[in-house]
Amino acid sequence: MSEHFYMVIPAGGSGTRLWPLSRAARPKFLLPIPGPRTMIQETVDRLSALCFTRNMIVVTGAHHAPIIAEQLCDAILPEILTEPMPRGSGPAIGLGVAIVAHRDPEAIIGSFAADHIVHLPDRFQKAVHDAISVARLGYLVTIGAQPSYPETGYGYIRVGNQIDGLENVSAFHVEQFKEKPDLTTATRYIAEANYLWNTSMFVWKASVLLDEMRRLLPDLAGALDQIAKDWDTPHRQTTMEAIWPSVSDVTIDHGILEHSNRVAVVPADFGWADIGDWHGFGSLIETTSSETTRVSGEVIADDAEGSIVFGNGRLVALLGVQNVVIVDTHDALLVCDRSHAQDVRRIVNELHRRGVTELI
Amino acid sequence: MSEHFYMVIPAGGSGTRLWPLSRAARPKFLLPIPGPRTMIQETVDRLSALCFTRNMIVVTGAHHAPIIAEQLCDAILPEILTEPMPRGSGPAIGLGVAIVAHRDPEAIIGSFAADHIVHLPDRFQKAVHDAISVARLGYLVTIGAQPSYPETGYGYIRVGNQIDGLENVSAFHVEQFKEKPDLTTATRYIAEANYLWNTSMFVWKASVLLDEMRRLLPDLAGALDQIAKDWDTPHRQTTMEAIWPSVSDVTIDHGILEHSNRVAVVPADFGWADIGDWHGFGSLIETTSSETTRVSGEVIADDAEGSIVFGNGRLVALLGVQNVVIVDTHDALLVCDRSHAQDVRRIVNELHRRGVTELI
Repeated sequence: MSEHFYMVIPAGGSGTRLWPLSRAARPKFLLPIPGPRTMIQETVDRLSALCFTRNMIVVTGAHHAPIIAEQLCDAILPEILTEPMPRGSGPAIGLGVAIVAHRDPEAIIGSFAADHIVHLPDRFQKAVHDAISVARLGYLVTIGAQPSYPETGYGYIRVGNQIDGLENVSAFHVEQFKEKPDLTTATRYIAEANYLWNTSMFVWKASVLLDEMRRLLPDLAGALDQIAKDWDTPHRQTTMEAIWPSVSDVTIDHGILEHSNRVAVVPADFGWADIGDWHGFGSLIETTSSETTRVSGEVIADDAEGSIVFGNGRLVALLGVQNVVIVDTHDALLVCDRSHAQDVRRIVNELHRRGVTELI
Repeated sequence: MSEHFYMVIPAGGSGTRLWPLSRAARPKFLLPIPGPRTMIQETVDRLSALCFTRNMIVVTGAHHAPIIAEQLCDAILPEILTEPMPRGSGPAIGLGVAIVAHRDPEAIIGSFAADHIVHLPDRFQKAVHDAISVARLGYLVTIGAQPSYPETGYGYIRVGNQIDGLENVSAFHVEQFKEKPDLTTATRYIAEANYLWNTSMFVWKASVLLDEMRRLLPDLAGALDQIAKDWDTPHRQTTMEAIWPSVSDVTIDHGILEHSNRVAVVPADFGWADIGDWHGFGSLIETTSSETTRVSGEVIADDAEGSIVFGNGRLVALLGVQNVVIVDTHDALLVCDRSHAQDVRRIVNELHRRGVTELI
């Protein structure tokens, strides 16, 4: 494990798509999905095999920092950077990179979201090690997951030519980043076999990312540089509060990676998933689609194929309802057809409209 | 109100079809359907306009007697007869009739289940008064409800010739009792227009019923006569315990009415319903089939037509699920397609199989 390897863990999210389990105050990364540990706990556990905990930085909203600290307190606590307001993954990851670069100009930094699923941690470690090798050559490295079906909820990466000069590592130039496709397009991507899922997992030299940021997003680079300079001084808070509100809201993909010609991709297959909604959650946990899956609690399922129950201690009985998601919490119950999983935010919107803020 | 008019109120039921709201210890007649008062409270309230409370007799299982007494304690308490074990409506109603006949040979007795809905009590009173007039002539009188749609969950009565000699009262001979029909048959009944719903509401002279019972069910008549003789003596319990277990399990319809030629029917239209399951419950309470009906609690219904929510204080959000019944209780939740409402007993059977007796 290298002293010069760092991790930035962006931990954001609004908590609407997995309502009522997720709430504004308790977004996905704070939830036990698939359980029993929470996603951010699993993430830090997984990254601990690759990086000293003291070299990890979680970037999150101020109101989530205390519960993150609480959830991670059974280990050495990573550093927690709080954003006064969310500004997208560009400023969030960029801030972590800029601060680390000031402390250690030799730093190599991985960025891994706090709410992704990895089923095969050994393969994940191999992929990160490979990505580090490629990053050492000066590339901005993304990790691309081998797609197993035409998912429409993910972005894709079109793979270009192989990068030469690497031993026991396969890495490729990125030909193009693709937005979330429709089903026809996604099916074509799978058939053409030269597309990978964009996992938004990155590894790079801090200096290389900051160079590209200075070129492509000079205002942001300047702002982050100023904050980073003052971070480990008494001026941290005043500088942060003066500068952060004016940084532009941009993702690292749109702002830098899509416009850089130093981007590489390392293909990997470690059972990756980014659960976007209850339907995706069901796909993740179910063994076969002809069974009802009990996630927790006592369930009786009678003529209820394809349904998912996320229980809360009470018996849940399903009778003659197929492909539904039942999410039971102490103060709210969701009964949703799986095909409507993306619309759960409409329920949250309705709660806003009614002013039922305690359930949001 | 006549001193000689009495009511027998059979209060039985297993509590399986409206699970999880109804339980073995809390069958339908003890529930607030449609609320806020319970069905047996509503029944006694309704009958109080026709009969002195001291002339009412509730016949029920021993384990339900205390809660019935509790629910009715805001009025003069009707007499509560407890059956050591259920034996069907024939022995239950027959026992009430036999006991009353011993006390008052002139008695006219109405029998009204403790768990029926009556929307129009004024018309109900008129129907009972009419039935009393007909009973005085020596008929076993049933009240037949004007059907409003081809319900397959009710029995039907085929109406025969009108009975002469009555002033301002329409009553008819009963041509035939019909079991619960299939939908085709029910539709034909409605089209033919000479069928009524069998409400199992009866009015008769005690002496006439007992005469017919002696003729058609002589063993039962003998047994009930023995019990009735000893009822108001110190031997009540020993006689009841000695004789009751051996009386045959028979309904009043099958055992007597279907074989008697002294049966009359009084047609009436007082918004009658006998809620058999959650689908029927939904039909009862919903205003239009294109709306989701909130029975209690906060509900958000998004693309959820025809659904029914029986809440329990928590928010219930429905999304993309049509024609479902959600019944939320503190320890069990039912999510059921309305077309499967009759199968709710399968859930209860499964609870038996699993030994989860606390939820039955």
